[in-house]
Amino acid sequence: MKSDIQIAQEVKMANIKEIAKTAGIDEKYLEQYGNYKAKVDYNLLDDKKDTPDGKLILVTAISPTPAGEGKTTTSVGLADALHKAGVNVMTALREPSLGPVFGVKGGAAGGGYAQVVPMEDINLHFTGDFHAIGAANNLIAAMVDNHIQQGNVLGIDPRRITWKRAVDMNDRQLRNIVDGMGGKMSGVPREDGFEITVASEVMAIMCLAKDIDDLKEKLASIIVGYTYEDKPVTVRDLKAQGAAAALLKDALKPNLVQTLEKTPAFVHCGPFANIAHGCNSIMATKMALKLADYVVTEAGFAADLGAEKFVDIKCRKAGLTPSACVIVATVKALKYHGGVKKEDLAAENLEALEKGLPNLLQHVENVTQHFGLPAVVAINEFPTDTEAELKLVEEKCKELGVNVVLSQVWGKGGEGGLALAEEVLRLCEKENHFQFVYPLDVSIESKIQMIAQKIYRADGVIFEGNAKKQLKQLEDLGFDNVPVCMAKTQFSFSDNPALLGAPRGFQITVTDLKIDAGAGFIVAKTGNIMTMPGLPKVPAAEKIDVDNTGKITGLF
Amino acid sequence: MKSDIQIAQEVKMANIKEIAKTAGIDEKYLEQYGNYKAKVDYNLLDDKKDTPDGKLILVTAISPTPAGEGKTTTSVGLADALHKAGVNVMTALREPSLGPVFGVKGGAAGGGYAQVVPMEDINLHFTGDFHAIGAANNLIAAMVDNHIQQGNVLGIDPRRITWKRAVDMNDRQLRNIVDGMGGKMSGVPREDGFEITVASEVMAIMCLAKDIDDLKEKLASIIVGYTYEDKPVTVRDLKAQGAAAALLKDALKPNLVQTLEKTPAFVHCGPFANIAHGCNSIMATKMALKLADYVVTEAGFAADLGAEKFVDIKCRKAGLTPSACVIVATVKALKYHGGVKKEDLAAENLEALEKGLPNLLQHVENVTQHFGLPAVVAINEFPTDTEAELKLVEEKCKELGVNVVLSQVWGKGGEGGLALAEEVLRLCEKENHFQFVYPLDVSIESKIQMIAQKIYRADGVIFEGNAKKQLKQLEDLGFDNVPVCMAKTQFSFSDNPALLGAPRGFQITVTDLKIDAGAGFIVAKTGNIMTMPGLPKVPAAEKIDVDNTGKITGLF
Repeated sequence: MKSDIQIAQEVKMANIKEIAKTAGIDEKYLEQYGNYKAKVDYNLLDDKKDTPDGKLILVTAISPTPAGEGKTTTSVGLADALHKAGVNVMTALREPSLGPVFGVKGGAAGGGYAQVVPMEDINLHFTGDFHAIGAANNLIAAMVDNHIQQGNVLGIDPRRITWKRAVDMNDRQLRNIVDGMGGKMSGVPREDGFEITVASEVMAIMCLAKDIDDLKEKLASIIVGYTYEDKPVTVRDLKAQGAAAALLKDALKPNLVQTLEKTPAFVHCGPFANIAHGCNSIMATKMALKLADYVVTEAGFAADLGAEKFVDIKCRKAGLTPSACVIVATVKALKYHGGVKKEDLAAENLEALEKGLPNLLQHVENVTQHFGLPAVVAINEFPTDTEAELKLVEEKCKELGVNVVLSQVWGKGGEGGLALAEEVLRLCEKENHFQFVYPLDVSIESKIQMIAQKIYRADGVIFEGNAKKQLKQLEDLGFDNVPVCMAKTQFSFSDNPALLGAPRGFQITVTDLKIDAGAGFIVAKTGNIMTMPGLPKVPAAEKIDVDNTGKITGLF
Repeated sequence: MKSDIQIAQEVKMANIKEIAKTAGIDEKYLEQYGNYKAKVDYNLLDDKKDTPDGKLILVTAISPTPAGEGKTTTSVGLADALHKAGVNVMTALREPSLGPVFGVKGGAAGGGYAQVVPMEDINLHFTGDFHAIGAANNLIAAMVDNHIQQGNVLGIDPRRITWKRAVDMNDRQLRNIVDGMGGKMSGVPREDGFEITVASEVMAIMCLAKDIDDLKEKLASIIVGYTYEDKPVTVRDLKAQGAAAALLKDALKPNLVQTLEKTPAFVHCGPFANIAHGCNSIMATKMALKLADYVVTEAGFAADLGAEKFVDIKCRKAGLTPSACVIVATVKALKYHGGVKKEDLAAENLEALEKGLPNLLQHVENVTQHFGLPAVVAINEFPTDTEAELKLVEEKCKELGVNVVLSQVWGKGGEGGLALAEEVLRLCEKENHFQFVYPLDVSIESKIQMIAQKIYRADGVIFEGNAKKQLKQLEDLGFDNVPVCMAKTQFSFSDNPALLGAPRGFQITVTDLKIDAGAGFIVAKTGNIMTMPGLPKVPAAEKIDVDNTGKITGLF
């Protein structure tokens, strides 16, 4: 079987100028990065402000398992299928992080015959966006510590700096550090730590910014820590927003690439889906909607995290109304939710499948009832799937009024997604009752309770020690009128990763509340959320190589 | 008076395709990064291997002072003057670091009417080379600590890891850290630290690599630390060279830009000039020599550091023979060397000038006698220079058989460098006796002594405690047959930054010896060499801004 990188390297890409032409992007907006990547100038958005928007299709998934789901693959394949059917379509995807490429994950640009290319570039430096975001993040950090070193006029409490440094690498060694050591000339010793670049608030801000002025305003509002008098210290206080924005001005332009079938694709920014909202940039999504009649986009993790935040944070902030939703599942993953071990997933097991199905069904219900969106379930096909298994999934979803379509895009590209495309086009014509899960003008506590009860089906929410105090502090600071970004394990509807399927009779425990004043949401942490991953025993990096002609191997 | 960025933004740049045409670069080798930057494919070097090389001109300088010298400005201006004179010329410069832009230094792409553009891009992310180098450096670091965390089969001693992490930011807070804290799942606690990216051995390797295979071999040879049994641990042991090289494959391609007068310029890589060799990449220099009849290049700091390493490390490793050398000085800086305070430098002071002149004269002697190169002194003109002062400089240099030319490139561009260009062309026709300062096949101690005595005019070299032991260790490890990279203050010929002018009667004290087995040289440290700068009280970042159209201001 061919690896993803082999398949990708065998396809002859079109020059990015051709792709831009397909997408209807005038050459004057195009900044080429080599022959197969380009940034698209913001001004396009302004110039096309009177063009009506296309229809927006969200691809989300069941709760992830080690068996894999294939959200990006399905997004790419669906776009290719629509393209093949003669529809004017684009896809707008998240930009993969460099760090995980060297860990276990491998690439994140789709898979099989449904990929965006050049996959090596997209997975490595691409157009430098992540590097720019890391640099802006670290400039702010350096200016915080420099301010303290140079006399600390603002009175920043070194024990209460919330801003961390960032590196786009899986490097657990940097999770918890003490820095500023080595004497008077080398800073003030304090506890500190690094996050992976995707976890930086700058990444979330990039995804939500509407233009450079808005970007600067959001950067300026970032709270980096607190003074000895308990006052928030912002990037504005440090006068760092201009330089940080200067570092980010090119990164803010959406990146244009192509799928293996030459469908135009934006791949632009992508923050964590737990401590942030997990969607690609508003700028890329809006640009795609101005250019195409149909835009396929994705949201991180499962529908309880990614889709909920897509709805309550991204769509709310950007004024978007999606037209339909695709929920990706695999038979294997559903059996895993039903209690089957990873090594036994290939065998038919209707009992386990039935036991695991409630996970899918709860996501379907959430999408259709709580988000009010027409939905289809896409079963990402594996050769081990049996007819009886597929039939069972179909029957159960039918009971909720939702069709199930077999997606063969991994093995066949767009051709394998034609049935899905047809159903999506049908759904887009249906009336929808798009709605948010909670209004903004209720208390922080109420918002979290509404998410927990409606989407997770928790019995209630417990605010532990610190979080209770923080609820009051945030209200006192006037930060109660913003959306809430739930930071929760992606493996379960609950905050316990071991509770698979569709658990009931549990409480959600909020341990920490934090305002991301730049991004404009409150992060509610349930349990310990890791913002700096580590490498595995045998890192994928050991297999990655490049030959003397520049050809990369070992990315998968 | 207009600032550098104002001057740069007023000039209408040519499309980089036009510049490539001027340089004789076929479009098939060109990878555009927007309309004004491009990477040039390595294959050009192979395809042109039978083309004879052009003549190589080195621009170096007197020992730096707060008054400034203008090496890059002179390099750019000289190239523009040659271009104006109808000569087929290119310049090959170092790539500026991002970090210092936010400190005091401002930009590093020349000044006045002798700049390379787009200066904002060149000073900020440019084509991502520094980011790639940082990522490769940090991947290696993460793999070292991950190896220890995952069982430490190689037996790496956490107290003897020599590989540091890198960030392209002036961030003193990261100089000395303890990382791996927070318990069993978050690494092994140890002392660690960050360097600024230019200080990474990966940067030095990039500058010395001939192709990707050579790059991989050099990366693999990097020593990251030692085992409990005192054995060196290499990147090869960690199997990290393939992934690191994959990260660097595009960064290895020289970057093509233009001067304000549309002279083609390579701006590619630039390691520190103390702990590394301080020259741009061999790849860019070689490519320029295949394309142009005359190539103007520069080396970091003064001639005792930059030019010596250019000769003994870069030229030796690349098999290059320079044809002439320009030594840049300013009257102000010479008066500073003569003991005048910074605020009094504008007034004529022949006595101080005479007292400071030996600094210039020693550099001139070193270049002509020890490197065996025809030389010219370029006085970078300031409005405060008096005729009597200029005359004095001229007379003294004449005694050494070297002409002095007034360079007005800062204020007039190429037009202001025509006299310098004429003299350089004359020198290039002269016979030269290019030679290294020391042969490779003598002891490490002898090499250092030869540099110290011939170039610095020290009475001798003292090897302090650790260094004595290290001399023996390096010989035992078989690392005695490589060049030595002196890490010394740039402000003095001695290792004491306060000894200005041309001091005599001093000893050089080597405190630390280290093999950079990847780059292939021994670093001899004299005193405490800072590899991570800090920000000043009022960082330049506070003034940098970008408006909603993407126009950057405040870079200078």
